[in-house]
Amino acid sequence: MTATITDIDTLRAQINERLIAIYPTGPGLLTEPVAYIAAGQGKRLRPLLTLLTARACGGSSEVALPAAGAVELLHNFTLVHDDIMDRDQTRHNQPSVHAKWNQSVAILAGDVLFVLALQELRRSATNVDAMSAAFVAGALAVCEGQALDLSFEERSDVSLQDYLGMVDLKTGHMLGLSAELGVLAAEGQEAIVTSVRRFGRLIGRAFQIQDDLLEIFSDAGTMGKSLGSDLAAGKQTYLLIAARERQPEETQEALAAAGDDLERGLSLLRDILESSGIRGEAEELVRRTIAEALAALPALGADQTELASFAELVLNRKK
Amino acid sequence: MTATITDIDTLRAQINERLIAIYPTGPGLLTEPVAYIAAGQGKRLRPLLTLLTARACGGSSEVALPAAGAVELLHNFTLVHDDIMDRDQTRHNQPSVHAKWNQSVAILAGDVLFVLALQELRRSATNVDAMSAAFVAGALAVCEGQALDLSFEERSDVSLQDYLGMVDLKTGHMLGLSAELGVLAAEGQEAIVTSVRRFGRLIGRAFQIQDDLLEIFSDAGTMGKSLGSDLAAGKQTYLLIAARERQPEETQEALAAAGDDLERGLSLLRDILESSGIRGEAEELVRRTIAEALAALPALGADQTELASFAELVLNRKK
Repeated sequence: MTATITDIDTLRAQINERLIAIYPTGPGLLTEPVAYIAAGQGKRLRPLLTLLTARACGGSSEVALPAAGAVELLHNFTLVHDDIMDRDQTRHNQPSVHAKWNQSVAILAGDVLFVLALQELRRSATNVDAMSAAFVAGALAVCEGQALDLSFEERSDVSLQDYLGMVDLKTGHMLGLSAELGVLAAEGQEAIVTSVRRFGRLIGRAFQIQDDLLEIFSDAGTMGKSLGSDLAAGKQTYLLIAARERQPEETQEALAAAGDDLERGLSLLRDILESSGIRGEAEELVRRTIAEALAALPALGADQTELASFAELVLNRKK
Repeated sequence: MTATITDIDTLRAQINERLIAIYPTGPGLLTEPVAYIAAGQGKRLRPLLTLLTARACGGSSEVALPAAGAVELLHNFTLVHDDIMDRDQTRHNQPSVHAKWNQSVAILAGDVLFVLALQELRRSATNVDAMSAAFVAGALAVCEGQALDLSFEERSDVSLQDYLGMVDLKTGHMLGLSAELGVLAAEGQEAIVTSVRRFGRLIGRAFQIQDDLLEIFSDAGTMGKSLGSDLAAGKQTYLLIAARERQPEETQEALAAAGDDLERGLSLLRDILESSGIRGEAEELVRRTIAEALAALPALGADQTELASFAELVLNRKK
């Protein structure tokens, strides 16, 4: 499946090596959670994308390593804070930062991850200014996406379009930024910056719908977090919104059942999603969105092979 | 007292005008708390310092307005998050963000204030790169200072030296950054950057010891927050550490009393601080630190007058 990214393990190792060394000295209350996160089991998809887009426009992956580190730190900043807001106790099968330490440490650890991201980005030997501008815009989008996500928890009239708009901000812009930074680090052409940004944003959208599917249809061990936790928290997902629109009464019933017995509620919900065809449509939307993402890449010519493999990684992931 | 900063009200109005316009569109969950903070009753000391140092090295205050906005946003990012950690329910006589909305909104509003600060800094027409580097270093120092402050709550062996080290990070670096950015915005000489940074850091130290004094000796109405709230939360302050070192038993007694009856505890503590001479010594330290700050300014020649007035503002404030 990922045959064409021959050195993917090396790239991941280079990213992890950078992350582990990111914050050598400082107060223990900060260096310890940062080290904990740096040693975590994340898939490092975002920094991988940064390294791959640098290569796709003729640069070396090495030149994009600071930018890659920066996007992974930015991503983890959002995870640490989101886990507090969502009261998620685990992340990648380990206690989340607020669960392992406490909430104050998690707020502050998130803050410092963001600062470290900026510091890491500034270590780039190329194009720091353009990358910083893109980074700030991306960070703003992520905050806005998370704000919309939070506000949706209080609403029962969220449409699929609202949801996808939120996903584009919260997940799409981060992957768009990851892709963009690689090209900027490699000093690629403006047209390539634009096309990989579009590629990344669409991959982000596909990634999130895939995530919504895995949340409901995979087992908890694979996803590495409590199955159905979003369901329990009243989170909107693509599947829930579609189910609510298509079969409001049955969906209401399933959600109510989940309150007492999560397994039964999930089972009812799976039935609705299968019988209504929503599951199949969502899977089709993931495939179509990835095809659209790939269609954004012609400017790269033959060099898009690795990015196509990256898209497959997202499409075929099991967690 | 502040006769030499003849247009201080105009400067404050310019800062406030910028802050109010900082985030015109976005999700209401973010724009509303940001507007609330922008309309708040802060003294705007940090951005004032930025404008004054720009002027002190021969620039216009206008050129430093984006940098001034950025430091005030950075400052407010830290306040919003610190208020969650410290469970402070009010700020400038108004509900803090987490008290008015909720904790999730406050985490996210703090995050977006930081992003807006970066965006605002990038609007500068001059020296964006050097300012960004200083900004990131300053933000890191502030996070580290807050981490030390938190960790001190769990310790009873914090020395005055530990405390002043924490204050230099948490408060000093922010004022040093504010001062530095003004000179960078005005494209002043490197020697002036260095000297105003030192000036700002020392002013920050004096400011914090002054704050510790006001916390215990002023009345709650003037300070705009619950008198003795730090005491109740087990926060270390210059005065408490000195009292604990000098009169451990009496101080322990006063703190225990404060648990039941804050007024009585405060009264006992005031007696200790007066009779031991600690209050007088702390006041003397504030004066001496400000004198040291002023001694860092000779590179500015005659243009240091406004900065001396700024130092007086800090020395003579009542809240």
